[in-house]
Amino acid sequence: MTILRIPGLVDAHVHLREPGYEHKEDFYSGTAAALAGGVTTVLDMPNTQPPTATPEQLAAKARLAAAKAVCDVGLFVAATNDLADAYLPAATRACGLKIYVSDTFGSLRIDTLDLMHRLFRTWAERARDVGYRSDGQAGGLGPVAVHAEELMLPVCLNLSRLYDAPLHVVHVSRRSEIELIRVAKERGYRVTCEVTPHHLFLTTDDAARLGPLGDMRPRLATPDDQCALWKNLAVIDVFATDHAPHTQAEKALPEPPPGVPGLETMLPLLLTAVADQRLTLDDIIARCCVNPRRIYGLPEQPETWVEVEILEEPIAWRNEEMHTRVGWSPFAGIPLRARVRSVTLRGAPVYADGTLLAQPGSGHVLFHAAG
Amino acid sequence: MTILRIPGLVDAHVHLREPGYEHKEDFYSGTAAALAGGVTTVLDMPNTQPPTATPEQLAAKARLAAAKAVCDVGLFVAATNDLADAYLPAATRACGLKIYVSDTFGSLRIDTLDLMHRLFRTWAERARDVGYRSDGQAGGLGPVAVHAEELMLPVCLNLSRLYDAPLHVVHVSRRSEIELIRVAKERGYRVTCEVTPHHLFLTTDDAARLGPLGDMRPRLATPDDQCALWKNLAVIDVFATDHAPHTQAEKALPEPPPGVPGLETMLPLLLTAVADQRLTLDDIIARCCVNPRRIYGLPEQPETWVEVEILEEPIAWRNEEMHTRVGWSPFAGIPLRARVRSVTLRGAPVYADGTLLAQPGSGHVLFHAAG
Repeated sequence: MTILRIPGLVDAHVHLREPGYEHKEDFYSGTAAALAGGVTTVLDMPNTQPPTATPEQLAAKARLAAAKAVCDVGLFVAATNDLADAYLPAATRACGLKIYVSDTFGSLRIDTLDLMHRLFRTWAERARDVGYRSDGQAGGLGPVAVHAEELMLPVCLNLSRLYDAPLHVVHVSRRSEIELIRVAKERGYRVTCEVTPHHLFLTTDDAARLGPLGDMRPRLATPDDQCALWKNLAVIDVFATDHAPHTQAEKALPEPPPGVPGLETMLPLLLTAVADQRLTLDDIIARCCVNPRRIYGLPEQPETWVEVEILEEPIAWRNEEMHTRVGWSPFAGIPLRARVRSVTLRGAPVYADGTLLAQPGSGHVLFHAAG
Repeated sequence: MTILRIPGLVDAHVHLREPGYEHKEDFYSGTAAALAGGVTTVLDMPNTQPPTATPEQLAAKARLAAAKAVCDVGLFVAATNDLADAYLPAATRACGLKIYVSDTFGSLRIDTLDLMHRLFRTWAERARDVGYRSDGQAGGLGPVAVHAEELMLPVCLNLSRLYDAPLHVVHVSRRSEIELIRVAKERGYRVTCEVTPHHLFLTTDDAARLGPLGDMRPRLATPDDQCALWKNLAVIDVFATDHAPHTQAEKALPEPPPGVPGLETMLPLLLTAVADQRLTLDDIIARCCVNPRRIYGLPEQPETWVEVEILEEPIAWRNEEMHTRVGWSPFAGIPLRARVRSVTLRGAPVYADGTLLAQPGSGHVLFHAAG
């Protein structure tokens, strides 16, 4: 039996759905799923109800997370068409600014040049005073994280460059996008990017089989797009799940909401790719630990590790063993070569062999003073 | 009576409609309208039928212009979704590359990142061999001219910057756009821009009165947008008409095509603004002569000038005196303080007091060898 001990993972892109959609997930169930997936830090997206778009909304969400979370949680703030950059007074307490400039779940899409320009300008102006955490500046700002598909990608690259604001492009899914990011990096742009396991391991070829359980934004892309992601692995800074749970009942509706859970399957999928010699363990550590910590300026977690078992024979993924409230995965039935055995966070055993050992509230809310 | 003698104007943005739409305009009627407006060089757009998207189509259009034009004509090539960058072998014989990335008349709109990226990359690769005319390189390439409204503007700024390709933004109409271009210029971007007389002198307040005769792309903007254009006059490199004639019958259809004529009214309108002390004559010469010649690397026209009469009392613009085939203007009835009296091109009188004196074919086709 092969047991690997690796650092706790960061999942830099999760939707824990609280407040507003607790029937899908909350800070307890979502962080429990994180630990079950070997993830000890999650960065939570702001498209909740209400969104995380003001200092008050961020503080309220931080209180919820502080009471319930079993792993560490960073919270994004959101730009909205109505509230614009109302988050600015609390900017240093967010892990980053999230801008939705492409179609997504919820109503946070920004669609005017005027507002996009303002958001980058004011974020950069705030950073003139406090710096960016990615420059090693404690108390500084995180990056501007953008959901920017297709032509919305160069929009964000341009505004980021004009204001020298670090840009993180979430869930890149297409050849056109990863190739443009490669060129921008070659030209010295301050840009990083992430790719999800579902875009690495599924394509439009899987979409018919999966139906609504394979529908998310960005949608599953073509095999050619997927091939471009793997070919440009060096351009990918981060693997993150875009864990976006909806109930199976919701997925059975005539107009099912887009999004799939991913926290528990990421590490087993990536380690299966290592077994298949498509990735190295170092590739994973770089993209799930080192790079997200650097990009978002996340604090270290002392005495924190994950033990994973590398399986001699692959085992099909079982929905029944999942901790996410929604209890399903687009990877159900897929043979995987690894499973998380245990997680230790700050010296304390928090997860072992399917059982959660941590108490609600034992996770830290990042960039918020304790209490 | 005050007579001014000024250089022949360049109108860097006209649609002379040939081939394919000769019932609206052709190279004779369109260049006659140019001379009647004090314009001795026009740059003609490629959204004809067929479009000017291949070397053969460019050569065919050049033959038409050479046979009919009474002023000098440069011809844009177009990118299309189907033909992509098929124009490349003839790139040096075009005045520039036109990309439609926003909604317009015709079917040339480009809407994928993949193709946009390719167009800028291949234009820049071609320029590596032949240079840009704007760098003083005879035989080089013109700029990439883009119809890029709103969020499509930073798309083009980004791709232009990544490939160091000079970008010319046509018919800027909004506050958001001119303000972004100002920032890009401050950051040293290789970008120039143009504004039309109709966006300088008309707004949404005029749209109801004008109906289809005030409908074009970009649409008339708000008074606040118009105010921003005037406030950022220093950011505007070029005044150009976007002369886009449609017949009055077409404009009376249930779904009238967008576009308005402008060649004959530009100079009288701009000189009226001088009389109103909103502009100086130097502002006009810079934006209608000096700058377009520099941006597009246009040859000088020796012994070429325009005589304009500055009127003591304004005279309402009359459609009946127009040379454009469509015979109407959105400025009909508007009191103007100037009119073109005569035009001399390369030492020959070509227009005087409403009468065209030039022979068809006396105009040159720029960047094409004679014959």
